[in-house]
Amino acid sequence: MAQATEPPSGTRDFLAAEVRRREHAFASVRAAFERYGFDPLQTPAFERLDVLTGKYGDEGDKLIFKILRRGEHEASGEADLALRYDLTVPLARVVATHGNQLPMPYKRYALGSVWRADRPGRGRFREFTQCDLDTVGSSSPLADAETLLAIDDGLIALGVPEFRFGLNSRQALFGLLDAYRIPEQLSGRVLITLDKLDKLSPDAVIAELVERSLAEDTSAALVADLTSDDPDRVRKQLDATDRGRAGLAEVDRLLGLTATVTAGRVVFTPRMVRGLDYYTGPIFEVSAPGFAGSIASGGRYDGLVAALGGPDLPACGGSIGIERILSSQEDVGEDPPGLDVAVTVLAQESEPTLIELASRLRADGLRVGLYLGSSGKIAKQLKWANDQGARYALLLGPREYAEGVITVRDMRSGDQRQIGLAEAAAHLAEQMRAR
Amino acid sequence: MAQATEPPSGTRDFLAAEVRRREHAFASVRAAFERYGFDPLQTPAFERLDVLTGKYGDEGDKLIFKILRRGEHEASGEADLALRYDLTVPLARVVATHGNQLPMPYKRYALGSVWRADRPGRGRFREFTQCDLDTVGSSSPLADAETLLAIDDGLIALGVPEFRFGLNSRQALFGLLDAYRIPEQLSGRVLITLDKLDKLSPDAVIAELVERSLAEDTSAALVADLTSDDPDRVRKQLDATDRGRAGLAEVDRLLGLTATVTAGRVVFTPRMVRGLDYYTGPIFEVSAPGFAGSIASGGRYDGLVAALGGPDLPACGGSIGIERILSSQEDVGEDPPGLDVAVTVLAQESEPTLIELASRLRADGLRVGLYLGSSGKIAKQLKWANDQGARYALLLGPREYAEGVITVRDMRSGDQRQIGLAEAAAHLAEQMRAR
Repeated sequence: MAQATEPPSGTRDFLAAEVRRREHAFASVRAAFERYGFDPLQTPAFERLDVLTGKYGDEGDKLIFKILRRGEHEASGEADLALRYDLTVPLARVVATHGNQLPMPYKRYALGSVWRADRPGRGRFREFTQCDLDTVGSSSPLADAETLLAIDDGLIALGVPEFRFGLNSRQALFGLLDAYRIPEQLSGRVLITLDKLDKLSPDAVIAELVERSLAEDTSAALVADLTSDDPDRVRKQLDATDRGRAGLAEVDRLLGLTATVTAGRVVFTPRMVRGLDYYTGPIFEVSAPGFAGSIASGGRYDGLVAALGGPDLPACGGSIGIERILSSQEDVGEDPPGLDVAVTVLAQESEPTLIELASRLRADGLRVGLYLGSSGKIAKQLKWANDQGARYALLLGPREYAEGVITVRDMRSGDQRQIGLAEAAAHLAEQMRAR
Repeated sequence: MAQATEPPSGTRDFLAAEVRRREHAFASVRAAFERYGFDPLQTPAFERLDVLTGKYGDEGDKLIFKILRRGEHEASGEADLALRYDLTVPLARVVATHGNQLPMPYKRYALGSVWRADRPGRGRFREFTQCDLDTVGSSSPLADAETLLAIDDGLIALGVPEFRFGLNSRQALFGLLDAYRIPEQLSGRVLITLDKLDKLSPDAVIAELVERSLAEDTSAALVADLTSDDPDRVRKQLDATDRGRAGLAEVDRLLGLTATVTAGRVVFTPRMVRGLDYYTGPIFEVSAPGFAGSIASGGRYDGLVAALGGPDLPACGGSIGIERILSSQEDVGEDPPGLDVAVTVLAQESEPTLIELASRLRADGLRVGLYLGSSGKIAKQLKWANDQGARYALLLGPREYAEGVITVRDMRSGDQRQIGLAEAAAHLAEQMRAR
């Protein structure tokens, strides 16, 4: 029967501490993005099915959650809507819908749930939060630089230690292919293999290149240059081709724009590839100790908005893998904020007084809870106050009530102090401020 | 073609100003609920279909958005999941799932989207936000009082003017039926008709009562008492029956507990009915000038959690109609926050310097945007700064750059001032603080 009450496979209930931890992280990232002048955007949880299908490849299409038609059409078994699969297709639709209402360039961030019918697994969910920022309508390299810097600030705000940006450019990758005279028909396969230099040994990568029909000497030279400690070896190769020079210029401009702020965190990484049919300009990827794969990435994708059904506008953007970062911090979590003041209830006649006192404390911004159980015993109610993580407890017995005083108990030290009922609110507010 | 890019029928894209307005309202309500010691809860957007079906009546069931099975099962045309229809059924499921991890009583609030395949109309959406708070596991009248007070605080936080609570009790309604000796089989119809005293004239209500087989003299007496300016007339009737006395006691206890804090905003309203098969104790409903119907409501529903598939626990709670309140405030909205500082870009060699300066301003918490367009003309860039609602613009021409100075333009007064590049960040931060 347990299964019957679990949330659906691959989804999660977030209880108080987890909601607070996540919202705190989301707020930090939002604040960082806002400082860069990005605007928030929220789109519906579902889109028309035809807006989504065909945008994510055959494998992606299979993972779309489709919504059954309703009413008389339900019996058809057909779907007309679908849960959003990412935040990029909705962005393209919004630019198409609201184009003339939007500032241009349109700088937007979005933090929201997406849904994918993936096989659930460790750290892989069917409902998870994506964190995107994009600039639509600017070709300026400053837009690329600002994307990278906003992601940088977002990662700092999230408390990710020692992360690094790998920076490359689509043009530089073409230049690499040109420099080593790699036949056009092999280029895709070669690049995909080179991208594995992160995980595989150089020899293993050479072997895979050869297996994919690249000449052995070319494979060896390419891998040797790309894994060399001397970055000038690749630079020299790129500098010898038109596309390579264009790519280097792109990379160097971005390095120049971001160098002071990022203090060495951005490194030209000529072997880094990323989605070939997606990016058109600079590309970046962020790695950090303790994370396999990247925790953020992005780049320029001038053709994408049009390909996704929007107008033909240049664009660049990036995404922070916020769920991965949150998972890695699960153990770090602070205690959930308990009550500032727990109000015990020892006599029915004093209840209106306690409610009024609670109201005054709340007006001061304190978090106040009243005992809602059925026990009249002080010990039980103090245990409740303790379980609530309360800083102070208030005790108002019948005799105290008659005398117009109340007992304030410091829940850490156990010290108790009797004060006038009229002074209690001001006293507690001051105590809390003094902490 | 326009239709092809609109969001799905009954859903909305929220652009920047609207997101900010909504998030600001949500944050105010959350803060109010937190002060009462309620904890946040977030559940998945969808539940297993069997968790939802049969919980909302036949009409409700038809409005559930169902999600098609996936993979090889897609062709079956069957659904296995469904978008959540409210926040109450997920709460009951959570109490069933996580019962022993939850504090008892469990006080939670939830602000989240729900989806209903209703016919979209003015102010009626298929995706909208609900705002609920509930206390599960307490029979204490203090829990009812705190529910009402938290809703009261939430409405104040939302800036709703002159609202009033109508308060009644399920027991008092039974007492009313007893006092006028209304036959059991008529009771439901009579109560539903009495609830219309808000909208219909007393005569119209009497006519409807008679039409529903209630004797004419009984109908007239009942309506006369319920519409009398003298509340003691109904009180006297209730006092003459067991259930009426129990109901009055419930109402008076709540009035007593909340009187000081709510300063006359809570009024005993014996004709107020609300969902009969739902509530078991006190019930309330909030009205305000300018709103037809209620903007918040709630009460005690001790049987509900069990009926919805959770354990058998007493519960009470309430809900704020936050979408209605937000709609009514649409015209009130402040201007969206523009940039604090707009940085114009007049010479490529100064770009790294401008980015570094922007970074320092952002570290001070300012919202800073760089010009990302293609025009090199000052006038065009200042127009952009103006469109962004920028408070200040920075201008760094080639000669100024060479001299190590920068021009700060006050976008409201048009005053310009040249200062040293090294002092610019501190100067602007101070200007902004001084505002």
